Amino acid sequence: MKETGFVKEIASQEEAFSQWYIDVVKKADLADYTSVKGCMVIKPYGYGLWENMQHCLDRRIKATGHKNAYFPLFIPESLLKKEAEHVEGFAPEVAWVTHGGSEKLEERLAVRPTSEAIIGSLYSKWIKSWRDLPVLINQWANIVRWEKVTRPFLRTTEFLWQEGHTAHKNREEAEEETLKILNVYKDYIETDLAIPVIIGRKSDNEKFAGAMHTYTLEALMGDGKILQAGTSHNLGQNFAQAFDIRFLDENQQEQYVWTTSWGTSTRLVGAIIMVHGDERGLKLPPQVAPTQIVLVPIFFDKSKKEVMEKTREYKRLLEEKFRVELDDRDSYTPGWKFNEWEMKGVPVRLEIGPRDLAEKQVTAVRRDKGNKIAIPENELVPALEKWLNDIQNNLYIQARTRLEENIRFTENYEEFKEIIKEKLGFIKAYWCGDELCENQIKAETKATIRCISLEEQQGKGKCIFCGKESTTQVYFGRAY
Amino acid sequence: MKETGFVKEIASQEEAFSQWYIDVVKKADLADYTSVKGCMVIKPYGYGLWENMQHCLDRRIKATGHKNAYFPLFIPESLLKKEAEHVEGFAPEVAWVTHGGSEKLEERLAVRPTSEAIIGSLYSKWIKSWRDLPVLINQWANIVRWEKVTRPFLRTTEFLWQEGHTAHKNREEAEEETLKILNVYKDYIETDLAIPVIIGRKSDNEKFAGAMHTYTLEALMGDGKILQAGTSHNLGQNFAQAFDIRFLDENQQEQYVWTTSWGTSTRLVGAIIMVHGDERGLKLPPQVAPTQIVLVPIFFDKSKKEVMEKTREYKRLLEEKFRVELDDRDSYTPGWKFNEWEMKGVPVRLEIGPRDLAEKQVTAVRRDKGNKIAIPENELVPALEKWLNDIQNNLYIQARTRLEENIRFTENYEEFKEIIKEKLGFIKAYWCGDELCENQIKAETKATIRCISLEEQQGKGKCIFCGKESTTQVYFGRAY
Repeated sequence: MKETGFVKEIASQEEAFSQWYIDVVKKADLADYTSVKGCMVIKPYGYGLWENMQHCLDRRIKATGHKNAYFPLFIPESLLKKEAEHVEGFAPEVAWVTHGGSEKLEERLAVRPTSEAIIGSLYSKWIKSWRDLPVLINQWANIVRWEKVTRPFLRTTEFLWQEGHTAHKNREEAEEETLKILNVYKDYIETDLAIPVIIGRKSDNEKFAGAMHTYTLEALMGDGKILQAGTSHNLGQNFAQAFDIRFLDENQQEQYVWTTSWGTSTRLVGAIIMVHGDERGLKLPPQVAPTQIVLVPIFFDKSKKEVMEKTREYKRLLEEKFRVELDDRDSYTPGWKFNEWEMKGVPVRLEIGPRDLAEKQVTAVRRDKGNKIAIPENELVPALEKWLNDIQNNLYIQARTRLEENIRFTENYEEFKEIIKEKLGFIKAYWCGDELCENQIKAETKATIRCISLEEQQGKGKCIFCGKESTTQVYFGRAY
Repeated sequence: MKETGFVKEIASQEEAFSQWYIDVVKKADLADYTSVKGCMVIKPYGYGLWENMQHCLDRRIKATGHKNAYFPLFIPESLLKKEAEHVEGFAPEVAWVTHGGSEKLEERLAVRPTSEAIIGSLYSKWIKSWRDLPVLINQWANIVRWEKVTRPFLRTTEFLWQEGHTAHKNREEAEEETLKILNVYKDYIETDLAIPVIIGRKSDNEKFAGAMHTYTLEALMGDGKILQAGTSHNLGQNFAQAFDIRFLDENQQEQYVWTTSWGTSTRLVGAIIMVHGDERGLKLPPQVAPTQIVLVPIFFDKSKKEVMEKTREYKRLLEEKFRVELDDRDSYTPGWKFNEWEMKGVPVRLEIGPRDLAEKQVTAVRRDKGNKIAIPENELVPALEKWLNDIQNNLYIQARTRLEENIRFTENYEEFKEIIKEKLGFIKAYWCGDELCENQIKAETKATIRCISLEEQQGKGKCIFCGKESTTQVYFGRAY
């Protein structure tokens, strides 16, 4: 029974990871394609996951003193053009509004590909004195980037994200904020999503268009490729100068502010799928799972009433503490339901049948390890609490172990190429800092510098490409 | 001291309501204008209010079995055109995307003015059998309508809303859903926002473009004009036919589904301002106020340390139960702070000075009634709990009383015109049902039928315009 139905309909993770991903997105009912090129619809189950993720991160963003606001969707072309590198980076991806009703607009409007420009123009109006600083604002919003090749959650023309935009009185505070958020993200992604990350700085090639420098969180996916999970940019005074954001300091001197911006998006749903999923489908971390526990009653005609009553009683008890679903559909067999809820990655399944009633117990099955135990009725809540914690930890530990096994150091470019060809994962190597080496490696292997290590003690070594001596260690990988 | 600073800077509510509104939006820091025509930025204080409103409504929407999802921002022109009345109603207000990057699109994309079309196209794909019904989905999203005349929150080119979209197997279920949501909205608006509403059905002239019929909630504003606070549409089978949403019923017969849609938006922030505000600014219902209680320490140099310590202690105590702000800014006087927090409509202000410390009490001031009392330290939490409840109730009762005083019945068109000229408010009158009468009244008085009464016992009377006998009572008013 276990192998029927659902599972047969998805590709093998090992043999065809990319197809497996698409299949899981559809079969687990997370998202669907639409008639709008490159745009997906996030279905209720996928959106429930995103809502829980939002809740976890929003709490952290607010706890560090930020407040939410909402800025316009549209950015006039002239505003977008004010920061030269910024517009160069984003112009090829912009969707342009040219008409309102039947009238042609005097100036085209960009559908925001990111909001530095519109927010910069407002900060310029709002910030006058050192008393107005820091400005610590975040927004949850939809973003549009005209992408050629799209994949649900990972790269779509429209996606959802949060973007923080802050302004500070000096370089130190801006840098402190940029790093503070990097750590907020790390904590959120590792603790709530159970995804270990490597943090570091982007090379100039890979940094945000217009930033002074960019910090990043990089995560290893199930197929060995790397996903950029979030970024935090120190924008220096670039945007302050472009958008004329000045203030009078304590000494009545006029100065430009220092700004930062940072974001994470619905991409992280893709990361959850690709880090934790297996051949049977999704595996969701209990912290963000839309359903933490599913109750499946099992009965024959004569036991139906009794079993259903008990199951409903458990549901009422459990939903005070957990996110619970009762699957009482008549038209599906228990076996079919087991497969479906495994596909959907629900952390714990409870089976309640006549024998369980007789023994005053429930049969509980963990999605992560697949093991089955009987839990005495009177221990149900504490036992499940413990299990959900265990599952959250176990998912993290499994992912952490795989990450550690897939960080390989080399000083030999031939070995580097072989690792990329055979194993992927992260490659730790020295880099001379020259863009030419970086570009050549990318051209030859499709591997890019995911980040420059932040670790203090890096020693010395030879650039993986040109052999020049260097003290800079970086992580290479093939990126999503 | 009370009359200094802030209050002088806003227009008189009585003399210039419209300017007062704009002034309050700006001075209370709810929103600001932007360089994008007709688009506003919702600032952190305004967005905090909206987040609380979202939270209150979202809870109710979920409690009635609906789930959230997210559909694309863009709607291909061909999709929008499928329902004839619908496109006719919305086309003049659509912002069109014509270019992606540097390429001209083959088909223009509408930035969603509402999502029936895109959602209809997906429901057609998802719904196959009676087992798939009902579909009960809501989305929180941004909406764009190209408006000629805009005003913050009340009418802006871009606004935020929630829109529910449901599909049912028959007429009765769709009608039941439409009315259920009408009551969810009524409960939310009256209980959480403390705004009494009149509910009813729209005339064909005023109904949603493409609906079979529309239910509405109408609220009286401080200037006697009426604001449409929310709508719930029974779309019949119009959209099901236009988008080909069919299912096999229990008897294996193919049928079109019946759909509904319903929405409320950031307009309701405008309603809160205009229903509860007064000459001193905003008055926020505690249920949704971003800050329910503000603590203002009052000290001279030698009492500063002691007062600040005590104030921080109160803050820690209170923030376990309430949304609390401590105003410890050095650069403003207490009097200035009082005015600012009154402008921002914070329900309760606590003043903590050396005398309060000596008496082991705090001085508490209510925003709604302005009265001041001393609360003994050890009764603080229950006393404030009671006060916040009282304020919530009092705001509702004040608004309800004004509403009742401003519903006037007449069968005399001259009197009707005089009421509209002198007093505004709601006018209850009989209407023959003829669009010609409705249009003529609108042309002569700018009053429209806000809704057709849902009350059962309406008796008989004469159409306010043509004098023809009728059993239909309606509410007229001048709308925002």
